[in-house]
Amino acid sequence: MNRINLICLGVSNMERSVKFYRDGLGFQTTEDKDNPEIIFFNNQGSKLELYPVDLLAEDIDKSDPPKGSGFSRITLAYNAKSKEEVDSIIQKAEKAGGVIAKHPQIVFWGGYSGYFSDPDGFYWEVAYSDNWKFDDDDMLIID
Amino acid sequence: MNRINLICLGVSNMERSVKFYRDGLGFQTTEDKDNPEIIFFNNQGSKLELYPVDLLAEDIDKSDPPKGSGFSRITLAYNAKSKEEVDSIIQKAEKAGGVIAKHPQIVFWGGYSGYFSDPDGFYWEVAYSDNWKFDDDDMLIID
Repeated sequence: MNRINLICLGVSNMERSVKFYRDGLGFQTTEDKDNPEIIFFNNQGSKLELYPVDLLAEDIDKSDPPKGSGFSRITLAYNAKSKEEVDSIIQKAEKAGGVIAKHPQIVFWGGYSGYFSDPDGFYWEVAYSDNWKFDDDDMLIID
Repeated sequence: MNRINLICLGVSNMERSVKFYRDGLGFQTTEDKDNPEIIFFNNQGSKLELYPVDLLAEDIDKSDPPKGSGFSRITLAYNAKSKEEVDSIIQKAEKAGGVIAKHPQIVFWGGYSGYFSDPDGFYWEVAYSDNWKFDDDDMLIID
């Protein structure tokens, strides 16, 4: 087992999240409904999926749906090609209804990094470093 | 913005999680320490990263670290090539210290699916369907 095919975010309002990811951030999909039952995006890396959180919990365990709140303890990251791209994406996320959790700044490991949270409080890091190498699909090369 | 480069799981015990993902499930890495400060895996799809949850929270916001508990409201998925592979991976996860949350079964959308949770309670779906198409990197083709 050495791959992650899908990342499913359990969201509280499909329409709000579809607008945030598709229309706000630009994640690509052929889905044109604003309030679909489920949506998959055709992005690089693990494919992004949005699904109502109650149904996601039910899908895991019908008898005792998982409960949870607050920080999901998972972050997703977009590794940008420049500081300007970091700034631009953080601004785009805020304009789309996200919240800037950490303004882009030089951080302890030498990169330039910021965080925003999506409408459900899922955190994304958007970062840039001189040291990263990308493959032909814009995915990080991990040595 | 149309990619996810990294998925970082904030874990409570690095050694336990490294053993689960590297030694138990077989995620590939050149890291041979059992208790590294951080670890990146060289998997297909968005790269998997493990980092202590307290430090992850601090990285997002030093002034008021996010708190959270219970269901992370995110699931990761491995799309298998056969029902037998689904069964095998769910068994491997249990043997490595995971918990089977849903035994593999035919589900409402026609596929064969099960869930396990990792040592921190992060849920993985492992599923198979006749209908899926994969690209050369074993990633799903989303029409």
